[in-house]
Amino acid sequence: MGAPKAFFFDVFGTLVDWREGVAREARLILHPLGHDMVWTSFADAWRGEYQAGMEEIRSGRQPFARLDVVHLRNLERILGTFGLTDISEDTKRQLVLAWRKLDAWPDVLRGLAALRKRAMLAPVSNGNFSLMAALARRNGFQWDALLGAEFSRDYKPKPNVYLSACEAFDLSPAECMMIAAHSDDLKAAAECGLRTGFVARPNEKGAGRGESAPTVKVDAAGDDLLDLAMKILG
Amino acid sequence: MGAPKAFFFDVFGTLVDWREGVAREARLILHPLGHDMVWTSFADAWRGEYQAGMEEIRSGRQPFARLDVVHLRNLERILGTFGLTDISEDTKRQLVLAWRKLDAWPDVLRGLAALRKRAMLAPVSNGNFSLMAALARRNGFQWDALLGAEFSRDYKPKPNVYLSACEAFDLSPAECMMIAAHSDDLKAAAECGLRTGFVARPNEKGAGRGESAPTVKVDAAGDDLLDLAMKILG
Repeated sequence: MGAPKAFFFDVFGTLVDWREGVAREARLILHPLGHDMVWTSFADAWRGEYQAGMEEIRSGRQPFARLDVVHLRNLERILGTFGLTDISEDTKRQLVLAWRKLDAWPDVLRGLAALRKRAMLAPVSNGNFSLMAALARRNGFQWDALLGAEFSRDYKPKPNVYLSACEAFDLSPAECMMIAAHSDDLKAAAECGLRTGFVARPNEKGAGRGESAPTVKVDAAGDDLLDLAMKILG
Repeated sequence: MGAPKAFFFDVFGTLVDWREGVAREARLILHPLGHDMVWTSFADAWRGEYQAGMEEIRSGRQPFARLDVVHLRNLERILGTFGLTDISEDTKRQLVLAWRKLDAWPDVLRGLAALRKRAMLAPVSNGNFSLMAALARRNGFQWDALLGAEFSRDYKPKPNVYLSACEAFDLSPAECMMIAAHSDDLKAAAECGLRTGFVARPNEKGAGRGESAPTVKVDAAGDDLLDLAMKILG
C-alpha cells in the first residue's frame, strides 16, 4: 500500500519533554516568589490532571475549551497540594505559558526532517494552535499545518480528531500514520483506520516511567523518532 | 501601539499569481486533449465565479464546503462557454488541482522572511488547508499555522474568519495585521479591528487589471510585499 502520505504526531511526551520543561519553568517562576518543592513532582501532579480535565469536554459535560484553559483549570486543582493557593492570576498565567517552553527530545528534528521529505507532517495533539506554534518556533519544527484538538474542537482519543486531520489533507485514514509514544493514542488512531508508529520514551514521566514498547499492535516501532523514521522509510 | 504581533495574509493574488498559473496548468491538461482557447480568459472566467460560489455558503444557502469543492462547482458553470462540457470527472479533478501549482510573486519570500523575524505569520485565505499546504511546499512559505476559511468554517469577508484567526494566536484584533492586495478584504478586516496592510498587484487580473492603490483607508501600503514589510518594520 506504499508509504504513508502524511504523518501525524502526538507532541507532549512524544516530541517534547514536558516533565523536565514544566519543572524547570515552574522553578524559574515560583522559586523567586519564595516557593520550594520537588519541581518534577509538581509537573507530574499537573500532568496527572490532564485526562480528567479533557474528559469533561470529551463527555460533553463542558463545551470545548482550548488546552491552555484546561491547563489553568488543572493547575488550580493542584495548588493546594503544593502550598500555592495564594499565587496571583498573573503567576498562574505564566505557569500555563510554561507549556510553550518545552524542549524536543534530541532525535526529533532529524526524524521530522527525514519524514518531511516524503510526506506531509502535522501535529495532531490536544494542544491549542498558539501552544503548538510556540513549540514549533522554539524547536524548529516545520509543519505543513497544525491539526488536532483546536481544529476539530474535541480531544483525542475521540475519533473525529484523527479523522478530521486525514480529511484536511484530502487523505484516507489508511494513507496516514499517527506517531506517538502512548499506546492508547495509537489504539484510538488504529480504530479510525490510520496506520500507527510507536516511539519509545521510556523516561517520559521520570526514569523508567514511560512506555518502552507498545501494548497494542502497531505498524512500526522505533527506539526514538529517527529510528522509527528509518524503519518506515526503509 | 507597537508593531503587529501577527500578520495574516490573503493568498490568491496577494502572494501567488493565480491567473498565469491557472492558465498554464489548464493548457497543460486540456491542450493534449485537443482543446484550445485563450488560456488566461479561461482562468479569468473561472475566477470570475469565485465570489458567487462562496456567497452561497456565506449566506447560509449551502453548508460550508472547502474551496476545492467550490472551485469544482464554479468550473462546471463555465465549461459550456469554453466547449468543455464533455471532459471527464478526472480531468475536472486535475483542473481543480491546478490551484495548488501557483507561483509566488517574486518579492514574496523575502517579504515573508522579514516579517517572520518579528511576528507570527499565517495565511487567512479562503483556500482550504490542503491547498494552502501545497502552495506552501511549492513556494517555500513558512507559516506558524494555517488559519482562514477551513479553520473558521466560513468565508471572508465574514467577520469570524478574521476574528477566529486572532483568537487562535491569543491576540486581540488590534495586535494583528491583515495583508492583502484587495481593498474589500482589508475593509472587512479593519471593521473587525485588525490593522491593515495593502500590497499593490496592479497586474493581478491582467495588465493594469489589479489594484495599484487601496480604495479604503489602510495602516500601511507597499508597492510589493517586501516594500510593505520594510515600511511596517521601519
